Amino acid sequence: MIAGELYNSSDAELVQMRMKAKQWTYLYNEVIPVDQGPERSKLLNSMIDCPTQDAYIEVPVRMDYASNLHIGSHFYANYDCIFLDVAPIRIGNQVMLSPRVSLYTAGHPIDADVRNKQLEYGHQITIGNNVWIGGNTVVCPGVKIGNNVVIGAGSIVTKDIPDNTVAAGNPARTIRRITNEDKIYWENKQKEYLKRGTDK
Amino acid sequence: MIAGELYNSSDAELVQMRMKAKQWTYLYNEVIPVDQGPERSKLLNSMIDCPTQDAYIEVPVRMDYASNLHIGSHFYANYDCIFLDVAPIRIGNQVMLSPRVSLYTAGHPIDADVRNKQLEYGHQITIGNNVWIGGNTVVCPGVKIGNNVVIGAGSIVTKDIPDNTVAAGNPARTIRRITNEDKIYWENKQKEYLKRGTDK
Amino acid sequence: MIAGELYNSSDAELVQMRMKAKQWTYLYNEVIPVDQGPERSKLLNSMIDCPTQDAYIEVPVRMDYASNLHIGSHFYANYDCIFLDVAPIRIGNQVMLSPRVSLYTAGHPIDADVRNKQLEYGHQITIGNNVWIGGNTVVCPGVKIGNNVVIGAGSIVTKDIPDNTVAAGNPARTIRRITNEDKIYWENKQKEYLKRGTDK
Repeated sequence: MIAGELYNSSDAELVQMRMKAKQWTYLYNEVIPVDQGPERSKLLNSMIDCPTQDAYIEVPVRMDYASNLHIGSHFYANYDCIFLDVAPIRIGNQVMLSPRVSLYTAGHPIDADVRNKQLEYGHQITIGNNVWIGGNTVVCPGVKIGNNVVIGAGSIVTKDIPDNTVAAGNPARTIRRITNEDKIYWENKQKEYLKRGTDK
Repeated sequence: MIAGELYNSSDAELVQMRMKAKQWTYLYNEVIPVDQGPERSKLLNSMIDCPTQDAYIEVPVRMDYASNLHIGSHFYANYDCIFLDVAPIRIGNQVMLSPRVSLYTAGHPIDADVRNKQLEYGHQITIGNNVWIGGNTVVCPGVKIGNNVVIGAGSIVTKDIPDNTVAAGNPARTIRRITNEDKIYWENKQKEYLKRGTDK
Repeated sequence: MIAGELYNSSDAELVQMRMKAKQWTYLYNEVIPVDQGPERSKLLNSMIDCPTQDAYIEVPVRMDYASNLHIGSHFYANYDCIFLDVAPIRIGNQVMLSPRVSLYTAGHPIDADVRNKQLEYGHQITIGNNVWIGGNTVVCPGVKIGNNVVIGAGSIVTKDIPDNTVAAGNPARTIRRITNEDKIYWENKQKEYLKRGTDK
């Protein structure tokens, strides 16, 4: 299944694994918000591979297996993200998903006769370091998003996105490179913030 | 309401029908995953018209009436699909909806004065046999999707889609026909799968 | 935070405010449908600013603060709308959101180093009177939608939309003006409706 070749989604062992993930996401999504910190972290780290154990995922979230999700440090996912991890989803450090982002590794044959036999495939999704994916974006099977990337809201990402770029649209296209001018602009904004000395 | 003409959505009988569907979807969405098989099927078949009683709909799901949803055999809908069935939604056999697919039969007048009187309309959505609709797709009121169709993820389907085609985009356009070469390609993949003799 | 300048989202007071909103949305989303009328209205009016107290918001709904949401009369939001109200969201009278509409005032720096310090910003979203926003639409930070506007389903609204227009697409563009012919067309439809004398 993980190798990208056809597999049968109704295989008993896979059904069992998905049922375990559904049971887990059900519990995770139901944790009462006031208690969420410790209990949610514990649940999350029991299911996904995040060595730094600092991933923060808002509820609700959906995952097919959870075990194929590999996450770097400082990960944040906002409301209602979906991870179809029939193939691995590998996410770097400092990645931020806005609400309703969908990472879909799963695909189905174009030919209906083969598709109707429950034969399907998955292709790994890879996301680099320092990436912000805007709300309601879909990342399609096999896509690799580089380092230092920003994806605009509502994008449908069907092809790889190179390092240091902003991409957006349906299908998503690279709009521009991220440059030193962006750094200067935001560092100035940061200086203004520090000068104000308050968040209110 | 079903005929596509204006109706008043605040009509007492319609409010009552929607309340029943909301109560039902609430119960359906809350079924604990480990018990889901038999209880979920029973709930589903008590609400929707699926003669083969083999529809499988992941939770959560939303439906306005449920009674206007007519489904063929081997239906599968992944997480978080929405069926606004103020007009009939007629779905053929072997149809597969990826996550977050939205079938919206409901529309509102462009003129604000008429719209603000709660007058609205619905136009039937029809989906043929052997159709796979990619994740996060919206199907708009009145649309007819043919047989043997694949809709790409994130599509906004505003017009009819002919048989044996792949369509995608916002708005969705036909990208290409599905041909015998697709069949040969996928049958070869299937042979490789059978030769491996395993799903792991 | 409200002024559109950078602020630190991990500020203790803001975390506290968001936790309150999460607790509230949790309760709101869990209200059993048959009891929904009075209890839901009470909960809603305890959190948001709607002087006419007649807003109707289907569940589930997500809000970051709720306190920055200002709503006019006769507001309706269908299933699964998301309000990221780190900056104010100001909505006029007679506004209707179809399912899965997302109003995102929140944004993050393009520069990863500044972004990774949890510094972010919000820009006010403003929606006029008599507006219908189609399903699965995203409204981006800072956008102002005028009066008498219809937004097509699946739109990504990145720029202001003028009064009396229909807009759609990714990114959303004005498609046409709403004219007196629209009024005549829909008033005729309304006359037919009244002549039928029934909603069935």
